Amino acid sequence: MSWINDIGPLGDVVLSSRIRLARNLADIPFPQAMDKIDRDSVIHGVYRSIAGSDSPIGEEFQFLSMKDLSHVDRQILVEKHLASPDLMKYHERSAILVNWQEECSIMINEEDHIRLQCILPGYQLKRGLDYLDNIDDIIEAQLPYAFDPNLGYLTSCPTNLGTGMRASIMLHLPILATTGQMKAMLQTLAKIGVTVRGLYGEGSEVMGDIYQISNQITLGASEEEIISNLEIVTKQIVQKEKQARQLALAGSRIHLEDEIWRAYGTMLHARCMDFNEFMELLSTLRLGVETGIMTKIDIKTINRLMIMGQPGHLRKYGDKTIGDLDIIRAEVISKLLRSTELEN
Amino acid sequence: MSWINDIGPLGDVVLSSRIRLARNLADIPFPQAMDKIDRDSVIHGVYRSIAGSDSPIGEEFQFLSMKDLSHVDRQILVEKHLASPDLMKYHERSAILVNWQEECSIMINEEDHIRLQCILPGYQLKRGLDYLDNIDDIIEAQLPYAFDPNLGYLTSCPTNLGTGMRASIMLHLPILATTGQMKAMLQTLAKIGVTVRGLYGEGSEVMGDIYQISNQITLGASEEEIISNLEIVTKQIVQKEKQARQLALAGSRIHLEDEIWRAYGTMLHARCMDFNEFMELLSTLRLGVETGIMTKIDIKTINRLMIMGQPGHLRKYGDKTIGDLDIIRAEVISKLLRSTELEN
Repeated sequence: MSWINDIGPLGDVVLSSRIRLARNLADIPFPQAMDKIDRDSVIHGVYRSIAGSDSPIGEEFQFLSMKDLSHVDRQILVEKHLASPDLMKYHERSAILVNWQEECSIMINEEDHIRLQCILPGYQLKRGLDYLDNIDDIIEAQLPYAFDPNLGYLTSCPTNLGTGMRASIMLHLPILATTGQMKAMLQTLAKIGVTVRGLYGEGSEVMGDIYQISNQITLGASEEEIISNLEIVTKQIVQKEKQARQLALAGSRIHLEDEIWRAYGTMLHARCMDFNEFMELLSTLRLGVETGIMTKIDIKTINRLMIMGQPGHLRKYGDKTIGDLDIIRAEVISKLLRSTELEN
Repeated sequence: MSWINDIGPLGDVVLSSRIRLARNLADIPFPQAMDKIDRDSVIHGVYRSIAGSDSPIGEEFQFLSMKDLSHVDRQILVEKHLASPDLMKYHERSAILVNWQEECSIMINEEDHIRLQCILPGYQLKRGLDYLDNIDDIIEAQLPYAFDPNLGYLTSCPTNLGTGMRASIMLHLPILATTGQMKAMLQTLAKIGVTVRGLYGEGSEVMGDIYQISNQITLGASEEEIISNLEIVTKQIVQKEKQARQLALAGSRIHLEDEIWRAYGTMLHARCMDFNEFMELLSTLRLGVETGIMTKIDIKTINRLMIMGQPGHLRKYGDKTIGDLDIIRAEVISKLLRSTELEN
């Protein structure tokens, strides 16, 4: 099930786990150098390898040509983390296959010919890799990959060379962030080859205390080794955050409760809210659900709020007579909160 | 009816009008100089003049000896503006008569032997004076007042000499306060003999944008002249505040709505709230009701909140197992808001 609608292992700190594999077809130039014929042949090749496969997986995917989508629909794919910002940027040449559970997507003609991606709720990197390995085999059976026996999979950018794999974990670290412990941790992580990014991956800043950690290197280690290293790091960070939460609760439970319920009241009643404030309040609310203080909503609602509060979703599903996104956001989140309120 | 439970003329800016008459009995020293026998004879004399009167008014009053009340019950009288802080301070010697509507009180052995007070909702100084004149006559028929043909009523403090009257108006001026127009206005008011104070009268600071204006002089003008002057000033201030509100609404209605509904959400959901924040949020909420933006509650609820949020009321009516007043306050105001929510 999509990470948005489910809670997985270590779910009180880990939002989601993502595996991405970069692949390129042999004998066709990398996307930035190829012509229209090459582009279309990659799109059609990948589409046929999935749609025409004997595996039941083939029937799970929907094909979307990026240039045929409206700007808002492209934005929605990015906001759901199914497409990358680059796939949207290169929409003239790119396409995407998305499975109906919205766990898995196959981006075509992004930076590489093929980018397979699987996102699962909580900590589940291994399950994600197993799923992608299956799809990877299906495609490879039809289309020969650019592969070097010494280097591994060849990629457009050398940072992806080798396994072509990027494994990343989305973490909610509100207490480590506010107590200032993140800074030291970021320095340590950099030293051991772990990259830290924001909500939208590369180049995006951290918002709402959500940190994305991923492997820096793709070469010289197997997929399993990379995942195993990341698992150790993730579990350590999760433990640190949980300890910090225990301390915060023991020190001043009432002030944490106060902050969490105020965030709820503000979200329910505000008439205008910018994205930064929204993400900050949502972080407080998420912490409330994770610690059991906030009982009116569950993690699914928190995740849906996070997705719905973004510009594309607001434009698509919000009141189209209102010009100001901050006003639409306040209305949409208030309605969503009311409609999902749990009986306690 | 008590100003707390009603809305009167100019009620979208004027909370209440108060008349106070200072009186002293002839041939008995002023309170600070009198002995126990004098004190008791004043208390008994005033009590008998009211309770034994032929007027139906006599039956409206309840007698309370301040020294027999608990600290919290004394505080409650002050918080309802029925007793002055000084009456509470001198509780060993003082007493009070309060009518059941809680519009009128007769303080005994405060700074003067007798202080008659009437508070009515909205702008109603003349009605208040008429009511007190009646009581004044009832008492004077039994007890000779200290009166000088040239000076008028003699009082313990020369600032009350003459009419012994202080007329005051409680005004809610949130927009004049935030746009910085109050400062210039305060200077003008001082020049024309109008004093500006906070919620609890003399020596109290302005909280929650509530200003109390009153006449500075009591000598050399009749009661009617003083009230007439104050009426002109009040109407001018009310007009200025209303114009400022119109401007604010025209300029950015959505931001005012946002602020008002956020205040409501915070009041409903906070778990801890100090008195300063409470008064600020209440001012925003009151502005919401006054401008028709806040439709979930009415002015009566705002007034009850203002009374209930004070320390004495919280100690008396809040959860007695909780030590922290800020936590009790949050609980009490949230319950009151929920129980008074209007159907829209």
